[in-house]
Amino acid sequence: MIWKRKHLLGLEELTAEEIVHILNTAETFKEVSTRSIKKVPALQGRTVVNMFYESSTRTNLSFQLAARRLSADTLGFSKSGSSVSKGETLVDTAKNIEAMGVDIMVLRHECAGTPKMLAENVGCSIVNAGDGQHEHPTQALLDLYTIREVKGTIEGLTVGIVGDIAHSRVARSNIWGLTKLGAKVMVVGPATLIPKDIKRMGVEVCFDMDRAVEECDVLNMLRIQLERQQGYNPFPSMREYIHLFGLTNDRLKKAKDDLIIMHPGPVNRGIELSPEIADGPRSVILRQVENGLAVRMAVLFLVAGVE
Amino acid sequence: MIWKRKHLLGLEELTAEEIVHILNTAETFKEVSTRSIKKVPALQGRTVVNMFYESSTRTNLSFQLAARRLSADTLGFSKSGSSVSKGETLVDTAKNIEAMGVDIMVLRHECAGTPKMLAENVGCSIVNAGDGQHEHPTQALLDLYTIREVKGTIEGLTVGIVGDIAHSRVARSNIWGLTKLGAKVMVVGPATLIPKDIKRMGVEVCFDMDRAVEECDVLNMLRIQLERQQGYNPFPSMREYIHLFGLTNDRLKKAKDDLIIMHPGPVNRGIELSPEIADGPRSVILRQVENGLAVRMAVLFLVAGVE
Amino acid sequence: MIWKRKHLLGLEELTAEEIVHILNTAETFKEVSTRSIKKVPALQGRTVVNMFYESSTRTNLSFQLAARRLSADTLGFSKSGSSVSKGETLVDTAKNIEAMGVDIMVLRHECAGTPKMLAENVGCSIVNAGDGQHEHPTQALLDLYTIREVKGTIEGLTVGIVGDIAHSRVARSNIWGLTKLGAKVMVVGPATLIPKDIKRMGVEVCFDMDRAVEECDVLNMLRIQLERQQGYNPFPSMREYIHLFGLTNDRLKKAKDDLIIMHPGPVNRGIELSPEIADGPRSVILRQVENGLAVRMAVLFLVAGVE
Repeated sequence: MIWKRKHLLGLEELTAEEIVHILNTAETFKEVSTRSIKKVPALQGRTVVNMFYESSTRTNLSFQLAARRLSADTLGFSKSGSSVSKGETLVDTAKNIEAMGVDIMVLRHECAGTPKMLAENVGCSIVNAGDGQHEHPTQALLDLYTIREVKGTIEGLTVGIVGDIAHSRVARSNIWGLTKLGAKVMVVGPATLIPKDIKRMGVEVCFDMDRAVEECDVLNMLRIQLERQQGYNPFPSMREYIHLFGLTNDRLKKAKDDLIIMHPGPVNRGIELSPEIADGPRSVILRQVENGLAVRMAVLFLVAGVE
Repeated sequence: MIWKRKHLLGLEELTAEEIVHILNTAETFKEVSTRSIKKVPALQGRTVVNMFYESSTRTNLSFQLAARRLSADTLGFSKSGSSVSKGETLVDTAKNIEAMGVDIMVLRHECAGTPKMLAENVGCSIVNAGDGQHEHPTQALLDLYTIREVKGTIEGLTVGIVGDIAHSRVARSNIWGLTKLGAKVMVVGPATLIPKDIKRMGVEVCFDMDRAVEECDVLNMLRIQLERQQGYNPFPSMREYIHLFGLTNDRLKKAKDDLIIMHPGPVNRGIELSPEIADGPRSVILRQVENGLAVRMAVLFLVAGVE
Repeated sequence: MIWKRKHLLGLEELTAEEIVHILNTAETFKEVSTRSIKKVPALQGRTVVNMFYESSTRTNLSFQLAARRLSADTLGFSKSGSSVSKGETLVDTAKNIEAMGVDIMVLRHECAGTPKMLAENVGCSIVNAGDGQHEHPTQALLDLYTIREVKGTIEGLTVGIVGDIAHSRVARSNIWGLTKLGAKVMVVGPATLIPKDIKRMGVEVCFDMDRAVEECDVLNMLRIQLERQQGYNPFPSMREYIHLFGLTNDRLKKAKDDLIIMHPGPVNRGIELSPEIADGPRSVILRQVENGLAVRMAVLFLVAGVE
């Protein structure tokens, strides 16, 4: 297929064919990071600006490295030390940066919809690196890539997403991507963390972690974002959460032989999953990170519209 | 002419011929940013360090991008996370950075005169990116460039600078540049924000915004720097300031057909000017930003003394 | 010799031959920084990540510049704005960064032993840029380089290290390096700042600054790290410290003609040494900084294992 989109705002708007095209493009780039000279000249002379209004380590570094390996110039930009404190609107900031001849803006923002707003107001490409509780498309794409790489296909698999479904942009983007590619998605967690109308997205709801472990081919263990849950308590205690939904060796005994464990990171060791599982043979967590780079190279390359 | 200066400290010290030479050099660089590969090898292997002791988005990014497009290596450096907190003097910090083989230091500092002090104490080139209430030469140069580009010439034009003249390094640098190039400069604002002896700089003082709008060919609307005015009140209320000096559609009715509106950014929408004017056909605000890059490429190139 | 180490964790573990090999390699790189095009392609396509969990100006910039001059890609990473605040372990952060295909991590951390811990847990090269009160190997290497450059040799010299020996990783790394290369080391300072068992490291302890000035060929004046000594007072007053151990012109009168003065920076002018001495003919402080770049280029080049 011929890629026509200028932006990557989310997986909701992509067709299955488009998603597969990104994954295939990523495959050709994955090899680059294994070379001793990890560079291709694809985006030479282009400029990518990382606008991160929320703190991030891995996504920020991953996008920067992806841009560098395509030979693009990258510029960082964070909330602190910028004009945000001077009261400039986000669109004005973006228009100013655009006027400097920037080709791609990678945006992380605490408000859902900001990437779309920028895409409607500036001429350069916008890549969503996470917007509020809305979408985190490159995370879902790297999850899809990793599942396809390990399992050979996505269609027909049962994928469990476990944890705080209600507040998770990772869950939302994964659900869009997985269902489009033909997987059966099971969302697992306490009732307080699963939106009432989530079934409309085509997923099954499951409150029983043991059943999920038994039935799934893939378990994506979401991070319990302690820092986002101050002020209200979605579950009585962390101990109870671990008891009901934590992934332990005991619970894994009933799993399929080829069940794989994913996590978007950073891992709360001993909460979502035990340290032995995080570092164990079923875990593909670091492979996700590795694939993230290839996926982000593919996304930057495609939205740049380089021939 | 042959450029001989090693530093760019301010427009006060430049001759009209030198200013025009920078603008002409910028013209040759402007085209680079319109290419898909936005690079020239002019400063390959040179190192530019951005020392920003005051927060900044556009100036900082613009200098970084300018250096990159000349193929220089750039390094950022901000007050937080540096040895400033360990009590090192600025000259010692600069001498250390110089000892690492840095070619150009771009300095923004809250104290007037610091670029000059560094120029007298280190061997590398110093570019002033704003020092206290003293000068902001590259901002004035990009303003001059934009006026010349739109109007064809600067000589003979009437340029109004509106707002907080007393605290504005942008105003001071613009006044030096505009008067040297033969424009008539009118400073406009409440009496509390216009220095008593400003006429010595060769400008006309005007307290009547309506008259300024009528007579000027260019209006440069300075930012009301709310963050600098805590503790004393130069005007009774923001509402009164807007009433007397804000640029509204109503006020524009009496303007010349070809009046253009400038602003150094970031814009306080609805204060200095209405949103419709900021985004309207008279506004050249984003063109200023675009030209800023070309002007900064020219400045870095010239002070580097590359043949 | 053939370099075989993948990491640079400290000077304690290096042989004299290895230290000399680093210094000799640095010599070949020093010339690069004097060219107008300050680049060699040695690490082209490699990625160096600076992980600085303690604030730093000169070491951070020096490592970044060193990597750039070897044509490596560099990425910064600081405590603020990262996932550290999300509770991720350091090893997990490092494994994630490694998974992105990073070749070398340069680590500064407040805890002694963290570089070793990372070296045992990740596959990429670790360079210690200062760990707690343990070691700061590249600082000692640049000190050794500078002494050798000025004096011709290190063997047989008497080197005084003056100040807070107890808390100084610079002192420890210098002692390892100097004694291995055959210098006589004298540690000088108030008894409260000299560890009881320091003699085991093969040094002489001296409480008399005047004698040290008389006997030494090199004086390395450590920084009084005021920021680390809150809460307890190792000496009655700063005035008393200066009186007993500060390097003044008066005290220098009895020095050998070719005594040289070093300081790891940032200098507290008027405390460890007087401003005239810091800027005087005996001072090699800026030469240390200059050599630091060459030494760090050599270290990055060697641990990268490039043929």
